[in-house]
Formats: sequence, C-alpha cells, structure tokens
Amino acid sequence: MANEKIEFTPIGYFRSSQVHPYEAGRQPDSHHSEGVIELASGQNFEQALTGLEGCDRLWIIFTFHHNQHWNPMVLPPRGSDTKLGVFATRSPYRPNNVGMSCVKLKRIDKLKIYVEGADLLDGSPILDIKPYVAYADSFPGSEPAWLSSSEKFTVQFSEAVSDDLQYLENHGLSQLRGFLLHQLEYEPDNSRKKRVKATDDGFVIAYRTWRASFKIIESGDIKTVAVEKIFSGYSAEELQAVEDPYADKKLHRDFLNR
Amino acid sequence: MANEKIEFTPIGYFRSSQVHPYEAGRQPDSHHSEGVIELASGQNFEQALTGLEGCDRLWIIFTFHHNQHWNPMVLPPRGSDTKLGVFATRSPYRPNNVGMSCVKLKRIDKLKIYVEGADLLDGSPILDIKPYVAYADSFPGSEPAWLSSSEKFTVQFSEAVSDDLQYLENHGLSQLRGFLLHQLEYEPDNSRKKRVKATDDGFVIAYRTWRASFKIIESGDIKTVAVEKIFSGYSAEELQAVEDPYADKKLHRDFLNR
Repeated sequence: MANEKIEFTPIGYFRSSQVHPYEAGRQPDSHHSEGVIELASGQNFEQALTGLEGCDRLWIIFTFHHNQHWNPMVLPPRGSDTKLGVFATRSPYRPNNVGMSCVKLKRIDKLKIYVEGADLLDGSPILDIKPYVAYADSFPGSEPAWLSSSEKFTVQFSEAVSDDLQYLENHGLSQLRGFLLHQLEYEPDNSRKKRVKATDDGFVIAYRTWRASFKIIESGDIKTVAVEKIFSGYSAEELQAVEDPYADKKLHRDFLNR
Repeated sequence: MANEKIEFTPIGYFRSSQVHPYEAGRQPDSHHSEGVIELASGQNFEQALTGLEGCDRLWIIFTFHHNQHWNPMVLPPRGSDTKLGVFATRSPYRPNNVGMSCVKLKRIDKLKIYVEGADLLDGSPILDIKPYVAYADSFPGSEPAWLSSSEKFTVQFSEAVSDDLQYLENHGLSQLRGFLLHQLEYEPDNSRKKRVKATDDGFVIAYRTWRASFKIIESGDIKTVAVEKIFSGYSAEELQAVEDPYADKKLHRDFLNR
C-alpha cells in the first residue's frame, strides 16, 4: 500500500486566456473571465453530460500542471505573514497537485462546457466535473482561523483608469480589471506575495506588460486602494524596437496614441 | 496529450467502520460517525499540517477505491427517477474515480486527523487535504435542477426503536441510526435505489445483518417515515448455527435475549 500509484487520464483540458500562474485568481470568482472545458471525444462524454445544463455551479477537479514540486510549508497569498502547512492552505504546490474550483456554468455546446469564474490556467488537465450540491458543499462562514484575521480593501478606479480598462477590454485585454480587483483586495503592498513595488508616492503593480499605479488610503476602519493610472511597462525605446515577443506592442502603441 | 496519464501517490488512507459501499452516506453529513485520516510517515506531512488545527472544515480528495468501471448514465440516489449523465451527479462510478468530501475537523494527533461526517469508506486512499474556505467554496442554495424537486421525509423512531438503537450503539453497532436517518429521508420506498422491500403492512430496510420495519405516512404536506421495529436479519435456525461469517451472532443473540 505504501507505494501505491493511482493513475488518471484527463477527461479534457481547460482553455482560457489565463496563461501564467501569477494571473490566476487566488480562488475562483467572477472577477475572472470565462473559460471552456473541452472534453475528449470518442468516450461517450456527450451522454455523461445529460442533465448538467440544469446545474447552476460545477466543481472542476483538475491538476496544477505547471507544478512539479511541493514544500511542507508555504506562505499563503493573504491572511498570514508566517508560513503555514500546505494542507492548511489552498497553495497549488501540493504533494499531489490536484485542485478543485467551483465555477458558474454558462452554457454547454456538445463537448464544450463554458464556465465563468475559474481560477484555472489555460491547458489545465481536467480529471472530473461534479455538480455543486449546496446541502453537501455549502458551509457559509467556515474559514480557516488564519484567514479570518485578514483585512479587506475596497479597490477604486479613477475615471481615467475606468476609461483605460474599458479601452483595453474593447481591444482584447480582458483580464486586467479582474487581476487588479483581486490582487489589491488584500495586502495590496505585500511585495513578497505580489508583483508590486513601492515608488516615491505609492505603488506599482505589474500584469504582463502592463502596469498600474495605486495609493493606499486608510482612514479609521475604511481601507481603500485607489488605482490612479494604467501605463505601459515598455519604455519608449522598447516600443520602437521591432522585436515583439509578447505580440502586444501594437496595443501598447495604440493605447499611447489614442 | 490525448493519452496523457496523471499519477498520484496517496498521502494516506481513511479508517472508519464504514466498510461496504451501501453503508456510505449519500453525501457527507454529521449523521455518519467519525473516521480518521492516517497520513503516511517519513514525508514531512507533520509540517504540512501546521495551522490545520485552526480549520473548522476540511475537504478530503480521495478515490472510490472499490470502483473500477463507469457508465455515462446513472440513476441518482434521490431526486430523479430517470438516469442522468454521470457528470451531472455525484455518483462514485466516474471516468476518474476521484471524490471530494467536506468534513468537520475534530482533532489532530501527529499524523492522524480525526474527522466527522465523512462519506468515505474504510481504506479509501487520500490524495489531498485542503481547508474549507467559505468565500470560494460556499454557495448556499445552489442545487442541480434535478435535485430540487425531491421531497424530504421526517424520520421518526418509536420509543422501542430508540431503545434498541441505544442498546446496539452501547454494544458497538454505531452506524445503524445514521444509516436509517439517511436512507429514509428521501424516497424511502424506492427499491431500485435502496435495500428496501414492501411487506404486507409497510416496508423493511436492511443494514448488514439487521433489519428495520417502517411505515410511510403522508398527510397533506407532512411526510413522515415511522420506524417501528429493529430486528435481526438472521432466522432462529441461522442464529443457532455455529458458522458466523460476519462475527456478529453474539450481538444478535444478546439483543434477542435481553
């Protein structure tokens, strides 16, 4: 028994525009955009989906396919500034790299299941899909002790930032808004946990080749993150150069020249 | 990718007095008695448990180790009298036999994690343990459409049955009460789904070598299952015979002679 191996074959793969591990939500939520579970063909999975359209929410059981190692102790993304045992956290680096996400079902088209609010990365192998059943799965108010001490910020976008986000979304960059809302909600200035840097008058957080500057305002019990500016992570010189490894320089140039 | 295999090694095994598949809860709940996750030694799992004691509820990811086959369509234990796709149900017979259970954490003693309310069978391989995090996991009221149409019965025990259950619990048969509460809550007379038989004046349900007789009383909107009698599934002749494959005839004899 000690060396027993258990073998699974993915029933399909997840497809989304979330590619890099740091882009994934800390937990599934609706800030994050849509994704598709593409089931394998030729295995009767069409039949196995019968009745799934009547489910409001689904569990996806998947693997963290980028991760090949684990550590017994990890620093969680929020709520604790000391390391915790991996079993007490939802860290993706685990002895068995299995994950579970509750997502909203949008629609089903043959072997494609469109969902919303997944914290899975593009290419994640899917092991199982189960219906969410509140009487067995829902326990409101049940949080780990180390999490309940965390303090939430309200993330506010300036008018300019709202316009910029709208422009970028209209031009295909759909994830930046959710990334900012999610990353800045808790411990916005924690550079051990986030791609954030202190500047002379605030902070800058990085999302792919984009940057956002923000200030932290605490007044009594009210905690606010004010996102003030969206800007390109490319220098003027870099933007002029021909090489374009992320195939996104046109959007940056258009954004600057609009 | 199509033939990718994903391999896991159990982090430990579940131990409980629930041995046979039909004894397991339909879903985890507190009717069902305690169990222990016994983690493997020599892998730093002691450290990986740091902080877990502050978690009220845990997810256990495990495998349905009795099950080697699956069917695309299954008949769920309640809520639907027609078959559904396996992905729309929590059936344990799945393309990948992976299960998830939310359980209450009772206590931790080195590599043993004592939990309550698990629907796992004795010997289930454990793949992962995660903390329950309400903000990501709890969605009250989210039930599959096929389930919400189901109708719940109140299960009542006669005074004699209460005494009998207490006697049997005092003598080591701890699961019968939970089995009856659970099995008779929905569709108590559905013999396609349960170990139940109609008799001249009611029904009998079987739990291992024990039997319980009950009546179904529906009065307007009030639906009741009245459990009237607990009795031995052995005939007098069988009880006299020496062979005792389930090693439980002494309890049956004592029960009858008390």
